[in-house]
Amino acid sequence: MKKLLEYNFPQDLKDMTENELELLSYEIRDFLISNISKTGGHLASNLGVVELSIALHRVFNTPEDKLIWDVGHQSYVHKILTGRAGGFDTLRKFGGMSGFPKVKESEYDTFDTGHSSTSISVAAGMAAARDLAGEDYKIAAIIGDGALTGGLAYEAMNNVGVSKTNLVVILNDNGMSIAPNTGGVPKYLRKLRGSRKYTDFKKRIKKNVSEIPGIGKGVVAGMQHMRDSLKYAVLDGILFEELGFKYFGPVDGHDMEDLIETLSMAKEVEGPVFVHVITKKGKGYKSAEETPSKYHGTGPFDPTTGRQHKNGGSAPSYSEVFGNKLTEMAKTNKKIVAIGAAMLEGTGLKGFKVKYPARTFDVGIAEGHAVTFAAGMASGGYRPVVAIYSTFLQRAYDQILEDVCLQNLPVVFAIDRAGIVGADGETHHGMFDLSYLSHMPNMTILAPADRGELENMLEYAMTLSGPCAIRYPRGEAADLGYGQRPIEGSLVLEEGGDVEIWAAGNMLSAGFLVQEALKKRNVAAGLVNARIVRPLDQEAISASADRTGLIVTLEDNVITGGFGEHLAAAMMESPVKVLNFGWPDSFIEHGSVEQLYEKYGLDPESIAERICEYLEKQA
Amino acid sequence: MKKLLEYNFPQDLKDMTENELELLSYEIRDFLISNISKTGGHLASNLGVVELSIALHRVFNTPEDKLIWDVGHQSYVHKILTGRAGGFDTLRKFGGMSGFPKVKESEYDTFDTGHSSTSISVAAGMAAARDLAGEDYKIAAIIGDGALTGGLAYEAMNNVGVSKTNLVVILNDNGMSIAPNTGGVPKYLRKLRGSRKYTDFKKRIKKNVSEIPGIGKGVVAGMQHMRDSLKYAVLDGILFEELGFKYFGPVDGHDMEDLIETLSMAKEVEGPVFVHVITKKGKGYKSAEETPSKYHGTGPFDPTTGRQHKNGGSAPSYSEVFGNKLTEMAKTNKKIVAIGAAMLEGTGLKGFKVKYPARTFDVGIAEGHAVTFAAGMASGGYRPVVAIYSTFLQRAYDQILEDVCLQNLPVVFAIDRAGIVGADGETHHGMFDLSYLSHMPNMTILAPADRGELENMLEYAMTLSGPCAIRYPRGEAADLGYGQRPIEGSLVLEEGGDVEIWAAGNMLSAGFLVQEALKKRNVAAGLVNARIVRPLDQEAISASADRTGLIVTLEDNVITGGFGEHLAAAMMESPVKVLNFGWPDSFIEHGSVEQLYEKYGLDPESIAERICEYLEKQA
Repeated sequence: MKKLLEYNFPQDLKDMTENELELLSYEIRDFLISNISKTGGHLASNLGVVELSIALHRVFNTPEDKLIWDVGHQSYVHKILTGRAGGFDTLRKFGGMSGFPKVKESEYDTFDTGHSSTSISVAAGMAAARDLAGEDYKIAAIIGDGALTGGLAYEAMNNVGVSKTNLVVILNDNGMSIAPNTGGVPKYLRKLRGSRKYTDFKKRIKKNVSEIPGIGKGVVAGMQHMRDSLKYAVLDGILFEELGFKYFGPVDGHDMEDLIETLSMAKEVEGPVFVHVITKKGKGYKSAEETPSKYHGTGPFDPTTGRQHKNGGSAPSYSEVFGNKLTEMAKTNKKIVAIGAAMLEGTGLKGFKVKYPARTFDVGIAEGHAVTFAAGMASGGYRPVVAIYSTFLQRAYDQILEDVCLQNLPVVFAIDRAGIVGADGETHHGMFDLSYLSHMPNMTILAPADRGELENMLEYAMTLSGPCAIRYPRGEAADLGYGQRPIEGSLVLEEGGDVEIWAAGNMLSAGFLVQEALKKRNVAAGLVNARIVRPLDQEAISASADRTGLIVTLEDNVITGGFGEHLAAAMMESPVKVLNFGWPDSFIEHGSVEQLYEKYGLDPESIAERICEYLEKQA
Repeated sequence: MKKLLEYNFPQDLKDMTENELELLSYEIRDFLISNISKTGGHLASNLGVVELSIALHRVFNTPEDKLIWDVGHQSYVHKILTGRAGGFDTLRKFGGMSGFPKVKESEYDTFDTGHSSTSISVAAGMAAARDLAGEDYKIAAIIGDGALTGGLAYEAMNNVGVSKTNLVVILNDNGMSIAPNTGGVPKYLRKLRGSRKYTDFKKRIKKNVSEIPGIGKGVVAGMQHMRDSLKYAVLDGILFEELGFKYFGPVDGHDMEDLIETLSMAKEVEGPVFVHVITKKGKGYKSAEETPSKYHGTGPFDPTTGRQHKNGGSAPSYSEVFGNKLTEMAKTNKKIVAIGAAMLEGTGLKGFKVKYPARTFDVGIAEGHAVTFAAGMASGGYRPVVAIYSTFLQRAYDQILEDVCLQNLPVVFAIDRAGIVGADGETHHGMFDLSYLSHMPNMTILAPADRGELENMLEYAMTLSGPCAIRYPRGEAADLGYGQRPIEGSLVLEEGGDVEIWAAGNMLSAGFLVQEALKKRNVAAGLVNARIVRPLDQEAISASADRTGLIVTLEDNVITGGFGEHLAAAMMESPVKVLNFGWPDSFIEHGSVEQLYEKYGLDPESIAERICEYLEKQA
């Protein structure tokens, strides 16, 4: 058998026997484990869709036919099958292959995904465009059962179901998002899985379409009849049928023959089709099958033992600091409850849940509901803490503004992964939260510079009578020792001469280095830990302006609409000049955090250099 | 019978006979028609829920029991029944009673609503708080079938269905949002309505629970048994049952006895219940029954003839200008398609739909899907124009950023009702869009000052290769004659001496008046029509800064993160001072637009006054 790199994919798939395809699935699993164990990446979800990806590219005529991968971290096999096996040594690295579908990367990637539950909407839009243009290529959205709990998927299904458009929705049902799913829909899916041995599906179909010679246009009428007669008896996905889809399944997602046969039929059906495929997350790699959440997104690991290499030192992450502190506070403050959106583990709330299961609410991939639910709990007298990654909290913008801020309800937003996150790239950087929260009336925004400050800020947030957001970055928590003081506005660490640096949150660490770099250049720089990003500490800023001619702001957020611009706006009447550092007005690619800081001139040396240039120009 | 104002509601409802309650419903309808014909307001939806509101306050023990009105414009009867009949002459007026539930207005208003599809999430949060506190009051969310197409409602149902919490969801099913609903769920609801004559519901229940002496705890076991045995035969709301709700209905929403009986049972059931109530929008007022969308939100009208008084002059609204222009452009540009979210009429797209039905997509109350669907169509080669009110587009923040801007797709956002809208108040003012769009990479933002400019901007938007938002206010379109020139950056109308005023969009009209007011005060003011809010016209702004010492910005948006702050940020290195005018950092109440401008110092005289003060201070 040829090596993966020697194939001419996806064309070669068309002529392979089913045996060869099965052998290929083994080879791909080996390839995934071998490569991801070196580079890190999303392992478990990709191991689960090996057969499905092969079957899709066998059955559909890509790139003319369009595949849309919801979320997209499960597109590695698709990448292998579309000529990109050679890119895996650069996976998620600076300048290398993305871990998500990227239109710019390949003609086989039809849409950039990253956030959950968009694929059916995208596919519906593409199908509408195709229909208007009078074309007839096929379109399939591949969505996980986790993503199906997101409201956007439902809005799309509500629309697609009544259209007559040809569109295949493939449910990749592994019973999990990152964690196991909860909710009425996942429960319903479990029922479907259990209602009949799904491995019988092929036989059942075979029996009923035995008179049909092959797969093609001709099969449709017979199949439809078969479907209709069996609808309530065998193919009982009535929830999807009621929405207007024809439901096929459940199908064993690791049975190549079954998959190819079902997909071949589904793509010929007139109107929207829903194919329910059962897969096992981590399939084929014992460690990942047993603890798929550990191998959802993983760093490098030992492929033989499965042992994951510990990244960096042994300091706890901000997520852990947050989770531990909240658990501690919940002991005395009985009103504290924790709300997550399918990310309890990622946001550090696993321990909280163990200790306070009744006070922990995981709503699934449903950020909007998480926030409005929190508003309801707050209006019922509780102190909800909503822990969501910065980039995903974007999905609840309207709920934060209208359901929380409008009534000034005391909901705390624990915003994890704020700022640049690194390898996940464009769709995952949390670089907009300061901008989208700063114009919300009643909102307080805090940014801790280290672990102690995060702890203090959580205490402080609970003393407020309105909404409060605490934003902190991905990864290991800094320990600068500046977190021991109570939060009362900003904290002047050193008064400045030529310039005073105001650093928000994690940028304080950079601030120290900038200060040093300036010192070497004979520039005397003061340093202030901003701490409270909103409302601005007007008094301290004015005092700072009185001491210096130039205030420099540092933030791990886009400059536009962020901390620095608001500080500058507040100083409009003062003669002080303000120079803002943050991310530019563009999307930022993937790479290590350090590489990205350097590329965009946000490393301490570059910042110091630009400050000196500015001072010279002004002089 | 007593007059409405003489009752002690809701207590008096408890002792009234069913006949008296029915008479009361007539009296309330008279009251609504008589009052709203004078003040304007939401008529049709309130006429549809007269019996339902009476039955709810009869059955539930408010305010201990909590009612949450989704969207909330249908809460007028609820207001009458909770001691606020006397407030109707000030309805939606400055300083008067709100047209939506307001916690600050009454203890019977449990949550401020205004945007669609939030009620089940809110109720779920309140129920979780109640359960944790060990209390046992009842909670009911009243949601329309239109709001049920919003993804947030689904996210909430997915969660509530598997909880064991006692929660009543009441579906107020009138087959409409503002316009008739489309989609798989509405279609399913129609099927339920048609499946059996719902007027038989009471008899069917009666027959089966005839052995049960009364309504109370004791009834539950018997009723549950009845329900289970009838589940698939009579009470066939399987879509809701599969999600974990017990389904009751459909029930005739204008049959008082039936409603009271059903609600009495529903509130005693353990776990989440879904009550399907069929109502007629506009019920009891012929004109409103026949054209409910005309009487959804209405101005004053003649109660005898139903004739609506034409507000103001005969100039077309911005919505009409937009719709007409787009229809005209679509004739030659076959790639133009229009997408709306249950607001085709409000956004001026009715004519477009008549002319180009296949190119018109009304997705229902599903703004997130509207945007991602548009992204799909754009990636399929079309030029989608998404027409949504500013305040509702907030619900698609993440989709605009991640699905449109990230790939730089050419989607045009026609943002209607941008800026202060007046009587609808806090939840409906479109005063955040400049702030939430300005930090999105690749986004172009245009603000027309008059009708001609809106037309030109639509042409201009189609020449761009990336996303573009055009924001314009509610109401009659200005005609300043400045719209005849092609859009190429800003437009200097008069170069200034002491000050140059940069006005964004509709604020140009105010700009002229400010200019005059300053002239009277011997201040020479220039005036610039900003036109392109983003990207900033740096060159023209610098030129402006060279001509004057003070740039004043005017915008119908919150100052924070808006046009003026970005202009100021761009001028940080220049000696010019910048003074921003816009809405302050708080939510703005309801009232006429003029009253609100005055209260917040944004009328031309106040602006001129503040500019003079600033100049004096700087001098």
